[in-house]
Order: sequence, then structure tokens, then C-alpha cells
Amino acid sequence: MRETAETTGRTEATTRTTSAAAGEHIVRRVKHLIDVAEGREPADLLFKNAKIVDVYRQRVAPGRVIVAGGCVAGVLFDDRDADAPDPAAAEVVDCAGRYLAPGLIDGHLHIESSNVRPSEYAKMALARGTTCAIADSPEVANVAGLAGLEFMIEDARRAPLDVKFMMPSCVPALPDEQAGASITASDMRAFMAAHPGEIFGLGEMMNMPGVFSADGETLARIDAARLTASGRVDGHAPLVAGGDLNAYAAAGIVADHECTRPEEALDKLSRGMYAMLREGTCSHDLAQLAPIIRENPALARRCCFATDDRAPSDALTTGMIDNACRMAVEAGIDPVVALSMATLSPAELFGFDHGFADPLERRGAIAPGRRADLLLLDDLSFTAAPRRVYSAGALVAKDGRFAGMVAPADGRVGELERMLRGSVKLPRLSSEVFRYPFRPGELAIEVVPGQAITRRVRPEAPDGLRRIMLIERHGRSVAAQDAGADGDGPAGEGLAGRHIGRGWVRGFPIRGAIASTVGHDSHNVCVVGDDPDDMRTAVENVGQGGFVLVRDGRVAAKLDLPLAGLMSDRSAEEVAREHDAFVRAGRAAGIEPPLDPVMGMIFLPLPVIPEVRIRPEGMFDTVTYTYAS
Amino acid sequence: MRETAETTGRTEATTRTTSAAAGEHIVRRVKHLIDVAEGREPADLLFKNAKIVDVYRQRVAPGRVIVAGGCVAGVLFDDRDADAPDPAAAEVVDCAGRYLAPGLIDGHLHIESSNVRPSEYAKMALARGTTCAIADSPEVANVAGLAGLEFMIEDARRAPLDVKFMMPSCVPALPDEQAGASITASDMRAFMAAHPGEIFGLGEMMNMPGVFSADGETLARIDAARLTASGRVDGHAPLVAGGDLNAYAAAGIVADHECTRPEEALDKLSRGMYAMLREGTCSHDLAQLAPIIRENPALARRCCFATDDRAPSDALTTGMIDNACRMAVEAGIDPVVALSMATLSPAELFGFDHGFADPLERRGAIAPGRRADLLLLDDLSFTAAPRRVYSAGALVAKDGRFAGMVAPADGRVGELERMLRGSVKLPRLSSEVFRYPFRPGELAIEVVPGQAITRRVRPEAPDGLRRIMLIERHGRSVAAQDAGADGDGPAGEGLAGRHIGRGWVRGFPIRGAIASTVGHDSHNVCVVGDDPDDMRTAVENVGQGGFVLVRDGRVAAKLDLPLAGLMSDRSAEEVAREHDAFVRAGRAAGIEPPLDPVMGMIFLPLPVIPEVRIRPEGMFDTVTYTYAS
Repeated sequence: MRETAETTGRTEATTRTTSAAAGEHIVRRVKHLIDVAEGREPADLLFKNAKIVDVYRQRVAPGRVIVAGGCVAGVLFDDRDADAPDPAAAEVVDCAGRYLAPGLIDGHLHIESSNVRPSEYAKMALARGTTCAIADSPEVANVAGLAGLEFMIEDARRAPLDVKFMMPSCVPALPDEQAGASITASDMRAFMAAHPGEIFGLGEMMNMPGVFSADGETLARIDAARLTASGRVDGHAPLVAGGDLNAYAAAGIVADHECTRPEEALDKLSRGMYAMLREGTCSHDLAQLAPIIRENPALARRCCFATDDRAPSDALTTGMIDNACRMAVEAGIDPVVALSMATLSPAELFGFDHGFADPLERRGAIAPGRRADLLLLDDLSFTAAPRRVYSAGALVAKDGRFAGMVAPADGRVGELERMLRGSVKLPRLSSEVFRYPFRPGELAIEVVPGQAITRRVRPEAPDGLRRIMLIERHGRSVAAQDAGADGDGPAGEGLAGRHIGRGWVRGFPIRGAIASTVGHDSHNVCVVGDDPDDMRTAVENVGQGGFVLVRDGRVAAKLDLPLAGLMSDRSAEEVAREHDAFVRAGRAAGIEPPLDPVMGMIFLPLPVIPEVRIRPEGMFDTVTYTYAS
Repeated sequence: MRETAETTGRTEATTRTTSAAAGEHIVRRVKHLIDVAEGREPADLLFKNAKIVDVYRQRVAPGRVIVAGGCVAGVLFDDRDADAPDPAAAEVVDCAGRYLAPGLIDGHLHIESSNVRPSEYAKMALARGTTCAIADSPEVANVAGLAGLEFMIEDARRAPLDVKFMMPSCVPALPDEQAGASITASDMRAFMAAHPGEIFGLGEMMNMPGVFSADGETLARIDAARLTASGRVDGHAPLVAGGDLNAYAAAGIVADHECTRPEEALDKLSRGMYAMLREGTCSHDLAQLAPIIRENPALARRCCFATDDRAPSDALTTGMIDNACRMAVEAGIDPVVALSMATLSPAELFGFDHGFADPLERRGAIAPGRRADLLLLDDLSFTAAPRRVYSAGALVAKDGRFAGMVAPADGRVGELERMLRGSVKLPRLSSEVFRYPFRPGELAIEVVPGQAITRRVRPEAPDGLRRIMLIERHGRSVAAQDAGADGDGPAGEGLAGRHIGRGWVRGFPIRGAIASTVGHDSHNVCVVGDDPDDMRTAVENVGQGGFVLVRDGRVAAKLDLPLAGLMSDRSAEEVAREHDAFVRAGRAAGIEPPLDPVMGMIFLPLPVIPEVRIRPEGMFDTVTYTYAS
């Protein structure tokens, strides 16, 4: 397969149906749609008395929608097609004057950030009207490589949400990161050859210096997007402007979801990039950016929405892309324009509004030959979950609750899941490892509460500081220990400065200790605490992953994330409850808002954000790219 | 190659560069663009002091444009990037405050209708600012099959206009037409396999009954579009609405250029089809349709322009897509909105605004990583040809005159041209063949001057009638004659009713005779006259193609079209002069406006338009699909 894909330059979104026989399958689907549209065969579903949201003409028009074989076979508008008789249909839905809108598209998100597996994410997303999610999974890929990505794909397939998986472009985040895997352009090509049609595009290109410098491996990864279904390369370019932005756009990168100010979004639109207005859990950019659409609705054509990272409690209570629509409307954007940014615009961005051979792959509007992803809404305020959600013509959610089917996790997905359950490989650790001395004037992290950036400090005394450690957990530590790294010393001591980094942090006033297997982007085990014994207990209780809070020698709260150390195997509701309980326990242990006991942990190891981070080799200055001596 | 294309579902617009080595070529181009954008390498061209037309934001903004390797490497806007220094450039163009706009895209046209060969068409189009033409060539394909199409592709390649050729979808127009070729879905696939990347999409699907009935061969042709560069299927659906329109859109057909009234265009937009507002030589729909954009500029997103058929004299004097822009502005549409319909909208329609791997294949705006197709304009009224036209960064026209290079017509294109010069194969014709009797009450054509439709009449007397004959010219007549069809009778008499149709026409008051090898869609020889001897002389003087007017036994005017009997081998200016002289001679011979001596001839044989036509078998009622007895 590999040579084939190389030869023809690009496969297509219908690549699950690439063979000549599958071509016949598409022809049969098209024939059925035509036969239904012409009244020769009965429809599956007929929606009557609907107020159809027509995103092409940005209007609401009363009419009927005919669905067959998972797609829209026809639309009949009362003002033009009143004479057309009702087609025969297996089921008639009387919309009673309610709105019928296209399903919502999330332009960019990380399922792992919701701490649930893809099939569980799907239930949550569908309940809030998202019917298509463009997912990037660098988190699981940093832990488990392409097998992790394969798990995401296979698990997502169990549920009726259409998830389009991007190929993570930057694994690991830096070449020398001690991550669980690395993915080169060559690896990408091999995976796509082995899994034709499964990869939709190249995920957010975070290696901006690699693009600006026209680095060979970076360009090879961008070129690998030719082999993906959409051929699209997604972007990530916070604050990039001028010549750098020209370079970034010239590389063929189609979108950015990192704009925080109007002029930044406008700069990118002028370079031909789409702007994704992000409204997530950590980042709330929509209110800042909405004025550009309110003032010039023509820009909606090239703007869409993204959640990026969404905690399950937020997703369950305020929603996802529907929440973005609600905020857009509250910011003064016309509701139909807002809906077009959640449907037609991302469909055009990703090339599946029109032109694909398979009608099931066309979407973003209610029109013949498009996938029947439909929302029944009481109004266009987006203040409540949709009354009904249909995915490819099947009812999948009612009144904010998932109402579809999820297939069992057997076969290949079961194998992959078992593999992910063994992702945390910690070395033996004596208590001595946690009892390192404070050296006056040494480099330390100062947390900026509520932000991902940190500041450099060199304190002269340990007052107000906490210990912070990063313990490699992908196998290097264990192998080094098995090879005798500790010699005759305490277990783990020989790993210090090689696979166990140790240092100090200010502004994280925990009483006791928190350990976590979620730590961007390599997801080694990070532990912060005021007591070495509590720290050791926390690490020992991490098990196969999650967040652990220990006080006075006892586990006070735990958020179990046994899948790759990133995702729970339980329902979103249970995860939200565990998460909320963990936050309450963190608050009781001294972590005050805006610092968050969960979110406040996960960026401390990320070595691509200023100014100081903890790495397995020790404290790292991310501005000068040097380790503390 | 064929199996490869089948396997992967679709090739892409960059298919001339499909190999791994060509992938390296794309990467090199991207690297160069980035290096220029970052100032590490010099640009080819720097446009300074430009008013940049930014179709993404629908604004005009002062700034600079950097061009390298045929593409835009960067755009610097004075309000945001004033501090950026001028990059080094081999050539600096001081725009002196003039407008710099993207090159125009013609969404649908037939080069043959301009009666010039593609390389000559290119010169004319570029001079008027068209830098990309989506061409459908059913005319030459009806005469010479896929070899005719190959000639168009190879001849177009000689000139710097980027012509994207569609695969003609309906050759011949009816299954039993006596055309020069037929093209099945299987033929299409074989041609695309042998010419990877050369076919851009499937041309206008005129077989509407075939779509409505979900005919197998029709759907197989639509499915063949999966193997084209764009994957797009273009449409042709005059007056189609309701269930038929649903069926047509459900088939995956992306656009229509046949709308004549606002509600028709709006119906199609609501079904997810793009509307091409046509302004050609025979059809003038723009003034009727412009109000929908003036009243709701958001519709510009899904509307573009097309010339369809454009006589060279019109093209030379009033322009092509620039003429459509001018009329749009005169109709009250904002000039930048009009320009976006001539650039960004068709680019999005055909999937080459963004997402293709090769920057040379992206277009429709002035932005990094897009092809540098640029127009320098004094103003945005479109009343004059552009001051300068650049195609892929090369100057190709100045002040309405072509200023680029055309490669010699040698090699393969020369071979194909020689083949096309032998397309007219007429039988021996005695004068008796032309002297058939009038039978009172027989079915005859009544011309509707200025329209393609005709009316049925059954005159009782021959007053005001003219003889009309259609003579098969693709080889069947000659073969039948060689096989003894005439027996001992006059030459050609034995072909009557089989390969020579004879009848009468009212409303075409020619004195003398006109013969033509252009006659939609099969392009047999049509002759109309009041004198059998003049008719015979006209046919005898057709030679290898064109229009001939004979009066009193002498050739009074001739428009030579030796290439497939459709196209001249001379310049557009010469063709326009010959054409105008022919029209004057026709006027002198009794043809009054709005009847046109050229355009009035070419639709008389078209068997798919109401109500009566001439076919090689005789007079044909196109409403009842029966021959006159």
C-alpha cells in the first residue's frame, strides 16, 4: 500500500472505501439517494414542519427534510416546493415548528484532555450536538506512539460520533525529550500505508521554529499530509506575525486556533489561514475574538470554532461547540452566522462540504447528498442541549443525554487497551531519593497562577518552596536500574539527574503531595510536595496512571487514569465527579484559585513554554535551553 | 497506473508531480518560499506601493507582495508590517498606488466556442485578466474523441494560461447520435490512467434524465470523477427544481451555470450547489442574477462567474470574466465582492484555495503559498483590460495585449493537430441530392430568432421556407457509399434518410446558402439555402471545416475552421475579422438581427432542445423523440 499512496499523492476521506468494489458501494448509495429524491423508493426518515437552518443562504426557512441511507436525499422548502407530496418514509418526525440545524463540527480538540476514552467522549459530545470532531492525539502518542493513536481510532469507531484523527506532528515536543515514543515523517508514512484512510490530516504544527527555519524533517512531516484523507495541515501559531507568519502560511498550514486578540486573527485571515475561535477549559478566546465577526459577518466564511481542551465537568454542564455558539450569540453575532461557523465553515476548511465522492463524507449543511447529521433545537440561543441529535440519520441523543449504541471493546481495541494499561513503568524508589537538599541561589520555578508560563527565580532560602520531581516512566528508568545504575546506593538514587529530575517550585503551596502521570507533553510522573514521605506515597499510589493527593501519609483523593496514564476507563460523569472531588481535596490541602490542583500540575514539565520547567535531567531554563548546573 | 488510481480513489491536482521525487520537488518549492519569506533568500519580484485586494477580508489594504518561484512568498500590510524591511528582490515593481488583485478564474467555458485553438485562446484570456480557465471540450470530443481532448490539453500547455480540462460527460449528446466518437465511463477511466493528473474533473452533466433515473452508465461517469484531480462533477441543470433538483444535487454535482432567474439560482444554492453567473456571447444571465448578491452579499461565497461560450470579437472588445466583474459592479455589487466571486469563490468551489500540497496549485487570493496570478489595475471598474497580468509570477500581458511566450506546436501536439485537420469526411454528392420535393403538411423547423429553441410547424406551402440538410461527416457516409449505398443512382442519394437528413426551415431567410461544420453537438455538416446549387457549392467548399456562405454560385464569405471543423489555426484577431466579415455577408444575404448567420446555424442540429431539429436520419421531433414520417 505504501508505494501506492506515494504514487498518487493523496488518498481521500472515503479511503475506507478505496477499492473498486467500494466505488460500487458509493454508486449504490448515490443511486438510492436519487431514487428516494425522485420518490421511487421510500425514505428512512421524513422531518416535517421544520424550520430549516440554511447555512448556504444564511436564513431559516420552513420545510421538509428527507433522509435515506444516512444522508439527506432531499430538502423541500414550503415557499418553493409546497406542491411536492410527502415522500413515503419509514418514520416521520413532526418537528412542530422547531429548528433543524446541521450537526456541529469541532475544528480542533484533544480527547485526552477530557480524561475519558474516545467512545466515552463521543457520548458526551453527541449529547451537546457535536457530530464531527477533528481530533489530534499527541498526548497518547507521546506515551504509546502510533499504537496509542490506533487505540484512539479503534475506540472512537465504537460510537456514532464521526471523529477524524489527525497525525500528531510533533512527538516528542523536543528531540531529546524522554517521551514514550517519537514519530518521524517516515513513521507517519508507514502508519498511513498500513492504515489507509484512517488519518485525516496532519495535526497542529507546534514546531514553529522548525517551520521558520525550513527544517528538513519538519517539511517532510508537512509533506506527509499529502497522504492523508484531507491533505490538510493544521496549525498552532500563537502571536506569530509578519515574515514568520508569511513563512508559516507559505508552508501550506491551513488554520490556527491560538489567536487571542482580534488583530492576530485578522493577520492570519489575510494570509489565507482559517481562524478557529477557541473556547475551551484552559483557554477562553471567543469573547475577545467575537467582535471581528460581529463587525464584519463576511469573515464567518473563514472562521470556525474549536474547544482544544475541555474538562468533562465543563463539557457536561456548559457544553462544547454549542457553548461556543451560545457565547457567539451573546456577543452579538447573528445565530445563523454563528451556526455557519460551527458547520459550513469548518466543512469548507477541511474540504468536506462538497466534492467528495461519498455522500457520507460530505457535511456542514442540510442539503442533498450530505451526511444526515442533524440537530432538532427549540430555539437558536444554544442555552440548552439539543432536543434531538441525529448522526448519519440515526438518533443518538435526546435532551442532552446520549441515546445511541456503543459497540463492545473487543478484538483489536481490547488488545490495544490492555497495552495502554501497562504504560506506567516506574523504577524502585527509596525514600532517600525524595530527601534532596536545598542549595541557596539554585534555579527554581515560580508558578504564575492560572497561566501556563512560569518565571525563573533563584531563592536564597527554602521558605515557601515545595519540592518538585519528574520521574521518567516509559521504561528508561527501569532499564537503567536493571542495568545497575544504582550500584550499592539507595534504589533510584543513581537515576537522579538522568531519569529523575529534582528541584524546587514557588507558588504551589500544597500541604502533603500531588503526583500525576499527566504532564505535557512527555507525560512522565511529576510530583510536588512539602513532605518527602508523602511524595513517595503519592508516586507509589499512581499505579497505572492518574492524579494522587496524599496528606499525612494517606491518599486523600485520586483520579484514576489507567489508559496510558491519561484517560479513565469510566464514564464522563464519573470522571467529572472524581475530578471535582480531587479539586476539593486540593483546595483543602492549600491550593487556592486561580491555581488549580489538576491544571496547575500538567504544564510544569512542558519544555517549550517559558521560563523554567522540570525535566528528567533536572531543572531546565526554556529561554536559554540549558539545564541548571 | 490504472489500478493505482482505482485503489486510492483519487489523484490530486498536483498529479503531474505524483512520484516521490516530485514530492521532493514540492518540498523544495515550499522551502524556497519559506526562505524568501524569512529573508534568507532573495525574491524574484517585489510589488511595492500596492493597494492589495484582500478577498479573505473583503477589503483593500496598502502593502507589499513578495513573489518567488511562481508563488506568493509573503504579503506585508502597511498597517501591520510597516517595520519589516523590503526583502531583496531581482525585480521591484512600483505599483504607484494601483490595485493588485488576484488573477480571475473562469468557472466554465468551451474554448471551441471561441473558434480558436487553446494556445490562442490563452493569449486572449490572459490579456483580459483570466489566469485560470476551467474548460470543458465536448465539441472537439464529439468530433475526435479523447484524441481531440488530448490536443486541447497539449496545445493549452504551450501558453501560460492555466487551463484545467474537465472530462466531457455526455459524448455523444444522445446515444444514437452520428457523432465522431463516444466516451463511456470505461473510456474515461482508461484515458485518465494513461494521462494521470491531466483531467481536472467531470464536465457539465447535461444528461439530466440520466441523473434523475439513476441510469447506471451516467452514475458510472459521475463515479469516474473520483479519479480526477479535483474530484468535482460540474453541472448543467436549466430550470431544474424540486425533487429533480434534490436528485441532481444528491448525485454530488457541485455547480450549475444555467440559472436564468434569481429564484432558480437560490433554489440551487439552498441545495448546496454553487451558482455560476454566466455572461457569455449567446447567454447573458448576469444582469438577471446580480440582484441576489446585491441584496445578500453573503451569497458571494457560493457564487462565481462563467463565460460558457464567448465569441472572439466579444472577448477581444468587451472582455471575459473582467466583463462579468464590470457588469456586476454596474449592477450595484461592491467591486471587492465581485472580485471575490471571480477569484476566491471558484477557488473554493474547485478545492484549490487551500489544502493542496503544491503551492502552484493553490490560488484565488494574494496570500503566501498561493500561485502568483496577479493583476495590476488602475481602478476596480473593470472598464479596461488590466494594466499588467502575471501568471505564476511571470508577466504575460500589458495593457490588454498578450506579452508572454507560446511554445512551438511540435511533437505530440503537432501529431494531434494533423489528425484534427482531417476530421471532415464528406461523401460524393450529386446535385440531385439537394433537389428534394416539398410535401405539404410535413414537419418543419420554425426558428425563434436569438434563441436556441425552435418551434414545430407543418406548412401547407413552401413560401418563406428554406431547405435544410444535415450531412454526416465523420466517416459513416463515406463508408456506406464505398459499400455501394448509392447503387446505380446519383451520388449521395442512397444516403438520404440514413446519413443525410433533409427538410425545411422557416424564419431563416437566406438568399443563397450557408454551410457549417459547427453544429451542436455532433458537428455534422449543416446547410441551409434557397438554391440547391448554392447549397451544393457551399458544402463542396467546406473543406476541412468552417462556415461558408455562397450566393449566385460563388463563395461570398468563409470562416475557416480546419481544426476538427471547429477551430481556426489563426490568431483570435484574424478569426474575429473573418467572423465579422461573415456576419456582414450574411446580413447582405438576408439574415436580419436578432438572427445571426453564425450563431443561428449552430443549434439547428442539437437534438436535446425543443422542438424540432435536423438529424442525419431526417427531421426530428425532440419533444416526442420521433422522426418525421
